[in-house]
Amino acid sequence: MLGLMQQQSLLISSLIEFAENHHGDTEVVSRRVEGDVHRYTWADVARRSRQVAKALDAQNLPQGARVATLAWNGYRHLELYFGVSGSGRVLHTLNPRLHPDQIAWIANHAEDQVLCFDMGFLPLVQAVHSHCKTITHYVALCDADKLPQDSGIPNLVSYEAWMGQQSSEYSWPDLDENTACSLCYTSGTTGDPKGALYSHRSTVLHAYASALPDSMCMSARDAILPVVPMFHVNAWGIPYSAAMVGAKLVFPGPALDGKSVYELIESEGVTFAAGVPTVWQMLLGHMKPAGLQFSHLQRTVIGGSACPPAMIDAFREDYKVDVLHAWGMTEMSPLGTVCTLKNKHLAMDAEAQMKLRMKQGRCIYGIEMKIVDENGQALAHDGKVAGDLLVKGPWVIASYFKQEGASPLLDGWFPTGDVATIDADGFMQITDRSKDVIKSGGEWISSIEVENIAMAHPAVAMAACVGMRHPKWDERPVVCVVKKPGVELTRAQLLQFYEGKTAKWQIPDDVVFVDAIPLGATGKMLKTRLRVQLADYVLPGL
Amino acid sequence: MLGLMQQQSLLISSLIEFAENHHGDTEVVSRRVEGDVHRYTWADVARRSRQVAKALDAQNLPQGARVATLAWNGYRHLELYFGVSGSGRVLHTLNPRLHPDQIAWIANHAEDQVLCFDMGFLPLVQAVHSHCKTITHYVALCDADKLPQDSGIPNLVSYEAWMGQQSSEYSWPDLDENTACSLCYTSGTTGDPKGALYSHRSTVLHAYASALPDSMCMSARDAILPVVPMFHVNAWGIPYSAAMVGAKLVFPGPALDGKSVYELIESEGVTFAAGVPTVWQMLLGHMKPAGLQFSHLQRTVIGGSACPPAMIDAFREDYKVDVLHAWGMTEMSPLGTVCTLKNKHLAMDAEAQMKLRMKQGRCIYGIEMKIVDENGQALAHDGKVAGDLLVKGPWVIASYFKQEGASPLLDGWFPTGDVATIDADGFMQITDRSKDVIKSGGEWISSIEVENIAMAHPAVAMAACVGMRHPKWDERPVVCVVKKPGVELTRAQLLQFYEGKTAKWQIPDDVVFVDAIPLGATGKMLKTRLRVQLADYVLPGL
Repeated sequence: MLGLMQQQSLLISSLIEFAENHHGDTEVVSRRVEGDVHRYTWADVARRSRQVAKALDAQNLPQGARVATLAWNGYRHLELYFGVSGSGRVLHTLNPRLHPDQIAWIANHAEDQVLCFDMGFLPLVQAVHSHCKTITHYVALCDADKLPQDSGIPNLVSYEAWMGQQSSEYSWPDLDENTACSLCYTSGTTGDPKGALYSHRSTVLHAYASALPDSMCMSARDAILPVVPMFHVNAWGIPYSAAMVGAKLVFPGPALDGKSVYELIESEGVTFAAGVPTVWQMLLGHMKPAGLQFSHLQRTVIGGSACPPAMIDAFREDYKVDVLHAWGMTEMSPLGTVCTLKNKHLAMDAEAQMKLRMKQGRCIYGIEMKIVDENGQALAHDGKVAGDLLVKGPWVIASYFKQEGASPLLDGWFPTGDVATIDADGFMQITDRSKDVIKSGGEWISSIEVENIAMAHPAVAMAACVGMRHPKWDERPVVCVVKKPGVELTRAQLLQFYEGKTAKWQIPDDVVFVDAIPLGATGKMLKTRLRVQLADYVLPGL
Repeated sequence: MLGLMQQQSLLISSLIEFAENHHGDTEVVSRRVEGDVHRYTWADVARRSRQVAKALDAQNLPQGARVATLAWNGYRHLELYFGVSGSGRVLHTLNPRLHPDQIAWIANHAEDQVLCFDMGFLPLVQAVHSHCKTITHYVALCDADKLPQDSGIPNLVSYEAWMGQQSSEYSWPDLDENTACSLCYTSGTTGDPKGALYSHRSTVLHAYASALPDSMCMSARDAILPVVPMFHVNAWGIPYSAAMVGAKLVFPGPALDGKSVYELIESEGVTFAAGVPTVWQMLLGHMKPAGLQFSHLQRTVIGGSACPPAMIDAFREDYKVDVLHAWGMTEMSPLGTVCTLKNKHLAMDAEAQMKLRMKQGRCIYGIEMKIVDENGQALAHDGKVAGDLLVKGPWVIASYFKQEGASPLLDGWFPTGDVATIDADGFMQITDRSKDVIKSGGEWISSIEVENIAMAHPAVAMAACVGMRHPKWDERPVVCVVKKPGVELTRAQLLQFYEGKTAKWQIPDDVVFVDAIPLGATGKMLKTRLRVQLADYVLPGL
């Protein structure tokens, strides 16, 4: 027997309609590529999103067609989020930090038909457009009079000319909620990039879950600064969740330096900011010497990589800002866990709380997770045993774009490629990437733990641990270290630094000093390349 | 093109599984009918819910069958919420405050097959069971040794004997998310009661929305006391949303007096409580003379009827507790609006904020609303024009149980039967019930406004305004008043009290002093009965 409730699809268009109807005069503020600050309201976003939808209709772009963007966080990008997806097309956010060859490869794989780009990426588009076989329309995100005359890009139009001439009279189509709405490619460190094709349903459910008090806790009293780029898993879905709760949105544009971010936080009364540790490092680096404080900022969510304890401390102690660790993946829309304390933890002392805060956190409802051993057997949630982390839920992918035949799932579960522990309270902690974990004499050594100890040494700027083949132990850890400028550090000193901080057999066999660690487009260490650099390396004593 | 996300149904069983997996040791505390306090955990709720499911399987109760309850808020009732719905049956919460004839009528209409009841309701069950044609199993919510020997109820078993013998090894069925999960009847003041048949999908989406920061703001740091009964629109869905966020739950049982509620709030560290104004009146009535304060309570949500401003003031000023107005209906699962301020309101002065707090609030995402005139034309959202309030959304009914042919919807919108204004910020304020509004000379007079002014007079205990036929004006308002004991109040004094507080033509034509105003089972005034009492009444001057 079915219930007798209204059948209403969970659609992205309903998010922007809600924001318009109930939060029409709430501001959306953007620092533009041009450097000035643009301000308007959710009602304006809604109106102009409908114009975008009509512009796509006008060029007869079919349902499901991919509209790509190469753009920073800003209001025009936001209009594309709603106009493209809401009208039944698929928004494909390209990552401008990738190599041009990769961008062209991804655009061709996605079969993008339209590309909308910030003017700052004109040189990039000029470099790749002749390789992008399927793109027929190029739209520069600028005013009509800012359009360059001889860009060399065929049929280039300005965004304002393209959509500005359209009427805003438009009714959003009533789509099946499982319709595809957006496409993000993982910047895989190995193999070709793979696309996650989100649906309206998955996006709206993710927005509900990510706005909950135990997730990012978003409300109409917030002014939200997504520093995390809109080309990086849809800025963790914040454009959608902000519309859902009617929060003020503040976009930083391309200016992610500490000074610019600080000024925007202060001038716009930002209460909540989200981003990767690198950005917060720059922000604190700007504030500390100048003795600056926040006047409205209450909390930040940090994801993308683990946040150094010192940074959490600084935010909490020096700036009275709560710092939440979050964890997710492109394949998870992205949010899986947030590290918010439970009632019973509030009475714990600061040190015990900090230990908890360093974990990636616990599941928000919708996501389930488990850890398994090499045979796929579930492991205990005791906070000690580490295993391969598997997840499932309505905003986790079932398959990759155009790889429908080859399911990545294991018995319905998505293997994250992370190695983690889960404690009795459900708090998950990543201990390593599956491919980075060092298997030594049948035991696992976490490369991240080895790196964290090295990073705690005052002379170390960056550290990467890799496993090296060993005839007896299978693998043994070696730590590659970039020294801070102007300081001395010897191999023996660093190895001695490990004493007492970890089990003897987990101490690396060697230290290799390098000038730099190779980083990927999103700032993650590329250990595959590091291993190539170490091709001729031989472990001591072999 | 469809997205490539995991298809996972939104099911009530996934809520209890989530609570077990991630919040297994979080407490669920119940003051029992017996008077003592019972405590266990979400893991226990999950385990025993599975035993309930197996007990229903053991008696071959088919999918979709209705399992009725007559019970206060407590742990066994909670187990039935998950065990009955999770296993594919329909939980039907009967309202014990209704007249026995009504209860029997509703049980027959619902075709309930099982009835689970608190021992306190044994006399009620004894009175009705012979009229309940479809009920074949009676379960007393008690231990085996508490079962009365000669109850006169056929095949009566104790809950603990019934489910306690079952194994807790059970896999929840993977149902269609649109499957019916629970059934609540409206206690209509006119006509026969009508059933709202909720689905798993509507219930889970409602749980997401109601836990949001701008709704009831529920998290794993909360200890939640639902004073609103579980037989009253599923205690506003709190059993589901508390499981979703892993909050501690505290059940008051039948003891809703001020002293009992206060002691429970204090002893269990309750942070959030939800209920109707009457209960809070009793609570504050107990606290004030004794000079008591709350040590953990942060906020209350008040719904069911409008909250007197003095009560909001008392909570905020004297007890530092935030009071949120909420509004909804049985037909809405029930939540439609919550009155939480926006960022821009935070800077307003206390008086302006209070004016806002007196409204029923703004929509949570999922619900849309509009007001229309008598011709169905949409009216302005200016906070002044009042019209019939219509709503829609995925947790609003499409039709009533067994009335599938006769849709209550108007062009997809559910008519609430309320008259309301909506302001430019989306804040809705109920001005009257459609059937109570007084139509005088082509203008509408809000019976609630007339009542509120009378209620503000220190000598008035209760007031009800009804429209009386008038040959010239169609209708004119008359206010029926119950005086406070031992105080004097004349007709002329009260009518003078209206001067300057409302427009002249909105002042009632007469005051009728009565001993009592007839109330329905949920404490709402029954104006239909009041009109019967006034059948012989003639307006002054006619």
